Amino acid sequence: MSYQVPLADIRFTLKELAGLDDVLALPGYQDASADLVDAVLQENARFVEQAVAPLNRGGDREPPRWRDGVVTTSPGYVDAFRDYAAGGWQGLQHPPAWGGQGLPKLVAATANESINSACLAFSLCPLLTDGVIEALLSVGSDALRQAYVPKLVSGQWTGTMNLTEPQAGSDLAQVVTRAVPQPDGTYRLTGQKIFITYGEHDMAENIVHLVLARTPGAPAGVKGISLFVVPKFLPDAEGRVGARNDVWCASLEHKLGIHGSPTAVLIYGAGKGDVGEGAIGHLVGEENRGLQYMFIMMNAARFAVGQQGVAISERATQQALAYARERVQGRAVEGSPGPVTIAHHPDVQRMLLTMRALTQGGRALSYVAAAACDMAGHHPDAEVRARNRAFYEFLVPVVKGFCTESAVEVASLGVQVHGGMGYIEETGAAQHYRDARILPIYEGTTAIQANDLIGRKLLRDGGETARRTLQAMRATLDDLEAAASAASGDEAQGYSLMRANLAQAMQAQQQALEFMARTAMGNVRAVFAGSVPFLMLTGVLCAGWQMARAAVACQRHLAAADGAASEWPRQFLQAKLATALFYGAHILPRAAALSSAVQAGTVVDACARKADIA
Amino acid sequence: MSYQVPLADIRFTLKELAGLDDVLALPGYQDASADLVDAVLQENARFVEQAVAPLNRGGDREPPRWRDGVVTTSPGYVDAFRDYAAGGWQGLQHPPAWGGQGLPKLVAATANESINSACLAFSLCPLLTDGVIEALLSVGSDALRQAYVPKLVSGQWTGTMNLTEPQAGSDLAQVVTRAVPQPDGTYRLTGQKIFITYGEHDMAENIVHLVLARTPGAPAGVKGISLFVVPKFLPDAEGRVGARNDVWCASLEHKLGIHGSPTAVLIYGAGKGDVGEGAIGHLVGEENRGLQYMFIMMNAARFAVGQQGVAISERATQQALAYARERVQGRAVEGSPGPVTIAHHPDVQRMLLTMRALTQGGRALSYVAAAACDMAGHHPDAEVRARNRAFYEFLVPVVKGFCTESAVEVASLGVQVHGGMGYIEETGAAQHYRDARILPIYEGTTAIQANDLIGRKLLRDGGETARRTLQAMRATLDDLEAAASAASGDEAQGYSLMRANLAQAMQAQQQALEFMARTAMGNVRAVFAGSVPFLMLTGVLCAGWQMARAAVACQRHLAAADGAASEWPRQFLQAKLATALFYGAHILPRAAALSSAVQAGTVVDACARKADIA
Repeated sequence: MSYQVPLADIRFTLKELAGLDDVLALPGYQDASADLVDAVLQENARFVEQAVAPLNRGGDREPPRWRDGVVTTSPGYVDAFRDYAAGGWQGLQHPPAWGGQGLPKLVAATANESINSACLAFSLCPLLTDGVIEALLSVGSDALRQAYVPKLVSGQWTGTMNLTEPQAGSDLAQVVTRAVPQPDGTYRLTGQKIFITYGEHDMAENIVHLVLARTPGAPAGVKGISLFVVPKFLPDAEGRVGARNDVWCASLEHKLGIHGSPTAVLIYGAGKGDVGEGAIGHLVGEENRGLQYMFIMMNAARFAVGQQGVAISERATQQALAYARERVQGRAVEGSPGPVTIAHHPDVQRMLLTMRALTQGGRALSYVAAAACDMAGHHPDAEVRARNRAFYEFLVPVVKGFCTESAVEVASLGVQVHGGMGYIEETGAAQHYRDARILPIYEGTTAIQANDLIGRKLLRDGGETARRTLQAMRATLDDLEAAASAASGDEAQGYSLMRANLAQAMQAQQQALEFMARTAMGNVRAVFAGSVPFLMLTGVLCAGWQMARAAVACQRHLAAADGAASEWPRQFLQAKLATALFYGAHILPRAAALSSAVQAGTVVDACARKADIA
Repeated sequence: MSYQVPLADIRFTLKELAGLDDVLALPGYQDASADLVDAVLQENARFVEQAVAPLNRGGDREPPRWRDGVVTTSPGYVDAFRDYAAGGWQGLQHPPAWGGQGLPKLVAATANESINSACLAFSLCPLLTDGVIEALLSVGSDALRQAYVPKLVSGQWTGTMNLTEPQAGSDLAQVVTRAVPQPDGTYRLTGQKIFITYGEHDMAENIVHLVLARTPGAPAGVKGISLFVVPKFLPDAEGRVGARNDVWCASLEHKLGIHGSPTAVLIYGAGKGDVGEGAIGHLVGEENRGLQYMFIMMNAARFAVGQQGVAISERATQQALAYARERVQGRAVEGSPGPVTIAHHPDVQRMLLTMRALTQGGRALSYVAAAACDMAGHHPDAEVRARNRAFYEFLVPVVKGFCTESAVEVASLGVQVHGGMGYIEETGAAQHYRDARILPIYEGTTAIQANDLIGRKLLRDGGETARRTLQAMRATLDDLEAAASAASGDEAQGYSLMRANLAQAMQAQQQALEFMARTAMGNVRAVFAGSVPFLMLTGVLCAGWQMARAAVACQRHLAAADGAASEWPRQFLQAKLATALFYGAHILPRAAALSSAVQAGTVVDACARKADIA
């Protein structure tokens, strides 16, 4: 089934929840009018629906092929990436000085979501290229930026991130790839990197690897890791593709999903190519600060992967909804003259609403985070910038962890909606279930995100950001109460329930925070036993808060629409309101259970010690 | 990684929770001593570990092949099924009069679990054959029983169930396969059946299909469906394989998982073979009562599929634990001189304990159900039989729904424990994730189980079984309180928390029941909007109750073991206790969230009506 960019919900979320108007008013974005953004959204939808979405099944069925180190990507990928580059999509959020269009991250986020919905496996290539561009712009020398950034922004070349080695996954302290300085200022790299997404392919004339490696005599652990640029082909004097560097693809992995994306084992220093033994690389920034640089990028990459969670959720939801509206099976539970489509069955509705609520909640959360990032970068007031920076960085592990774990749940529900047909590969629901499963793992597992949330983001400002967020939520509670008073019947009940459940979820988070605060000094293991439940609780709560804001906005527009024209069609507002109230009734109660799990940390830790596990 | 039958936990669950001694004391089982059961467990473990477990990966990578209607199963399957038959395993629970061993269902349940852990795809063949045997013994004529049952019990022939058609999945009212009576008393069947597990294969000399079809002039809907036996080869005068019947495998499905199991499209009446046009079938029982007969079997098949959930959970847990104990990555969160295995990390421990707790909780629930079935069939007191029958039938949809949904969660956690390696197919964790996904779908989706639980099992005796179950749980609350008083430190805290959370979960179920009771008359859709959450709540609660009983039993044995020899090693008891208390601390709190979702039914239903879904 084909994919349609959910333009109405994207626009509503941009304007009503993420504050698009405020972002467009920021210094640096004045040229980007609301009309321009609308035009970008339209054109982007046209492009991903027509050029990218059709790749999704083919890449799954015909994965890239490796032969003698050369990788041929799935049918259509080369052409689609050429169109992607030609359309200027890679440059959407990058500075005009480097060939980009300099649009806010908030606008780029909509495009990142939609292309990943269209084809996750394809979109990993631009996603990683974005990361390399940001790294070079942040910490690369002028020479490195000049040599690489324009070619990456234009889509002539693509980028990769080389972190993982067989013994060094989540634990980058174990990296052993060596980088030996040469008299000419370059370095020679030798070692093996694994799980390198788009580490080799035929979609661009050159591939620019960002590589973590250790120089001779570097300190042990993470403080002895440096960052290098290692291109597949070294640029010649004119900046064009030159000598073949000594980096080679030894094989591709056979994965559960995202089959269309080549996952490479790369060998640095095989002694082949045009440059002798050892891949030639350029140091990025200073030696031994590689991990620190990687962390600069990490927030961007993790945010983008969190959006992949929203993206696959949206795709799976569209597919399940279309099937449920077609498939006739069984009678209505309250009685019906003949069989009905399964979309009439209460449990199918529960599944579809759960899928939709988690998708829309994750979308809102990610757009709100993107807007905070734009504010952090462009607001004239330093205090506002700092506050938004803290809020964005607080949200990044939540967006990454919550939206990707939700994607696994949503894709699994998508299979269930299809019944037996969902288990047949030709239907396509199973592909989403397979594809989604990588999301809570790569760019840092959910546990790594939870460690980041608890160990860095919460503590860094003494819990100030968390407190400020809870304060903002209290205003939403008041709005819900007012909405309940203004409404009647089921709707009033829905607002009231959402208010009660949001308040309960806030209290659940508060209690979890208090448990962690009073336990951390005495038994840090008891705190980390609940780290992922705490992240999920925070995600349920923060996305629920956004859905509550959506409900309030819908109510405002619906009230105003009585007799007046609204920007949003009434049918859209009613469905959006229903989805938001469903989130309040059905999803928000999870927060309390997760909080109980967090607060049980001391018992859980005692169990873990006695359970004969380690 | 290889699979080891968890004999210690199986034995503990049999004896301490399911009441093996009481079952063995029942009339009809006196010959089955505890020693005999131990010997069966040992021999079964040897067989499945050596002969079946090695099939699991090969069948995934080399699925059965179809060519011109002939299906060649995966390497090793033919030999393994021959050994299975020769070992007498198919007959374990069937009557000695028909060549079986007449062991209690409780004992057969352990063998069903272990063979499904060893290889789910392989084990579907015996599982379905069991269903055909039970159907024929329940409602078949003497002639049919004589012709088919001994061959099925001995494993010479295998059986299938033919329910689904393209337009008739969950809704069997839509079945259109035709069965036309012939002058000789047989019927001729024409039509198409899909999703027929082991519908064609090369592991046995004959395949006995049980087929739902409609006779001419039969009433519309489910009251016009009859049940037929249609063998691939008609038995000749000596009962041996004779004329080739007119039933043909048109193709095999390409599935997400259980690749080793051939899922056939069967055509009845292609006009090929030795019998002319239309497959020759024999009516089972009376015309138009087919669905009723299917329901007789359904409890058994659904129970067996629920056990498949436990089985795949066990296998995934073993694999994840072995990996976590080997993989060295990162330092201990409380500080450590060097890297540690990931089994030391609190979040990995949380995942492993969640996997283990859900597995062991599901195992206990299923064995308790099997024991109730044995009591229902063999106890001399009619009132005890009736009470156990009701309890078993109440538990069947819970075992099916809860253990299979849990299996998806457990298998997904198994991938997560492996990190990036979990996404690589060669590791094997991904296969469990793919295999598990069918379990909440086939033999009735979780929604169908929930409808059965709410619409039939709860109402049938006016909620008496549910009330009696809650009453029995109250005794366990008292036991937990006593255990908390007798213990100290972490353990006392663990018992207290389990008691509090069990009490809370009981109250959560009670409130959900009350909501459903007071809402059913006015708004049945609002009740069914929470049907699956109610089933999951019941599963969390009932498995938690069993884990609470396990904790109490552990405490008793640990106390007694001070100075005396116990049947259970101290290390086992401590790990079992830790797992049980973890369930209490970490899993039981889910019940309250699920109850909230159920009680939100009226709002959820209002949302569903306005959400533009149907």
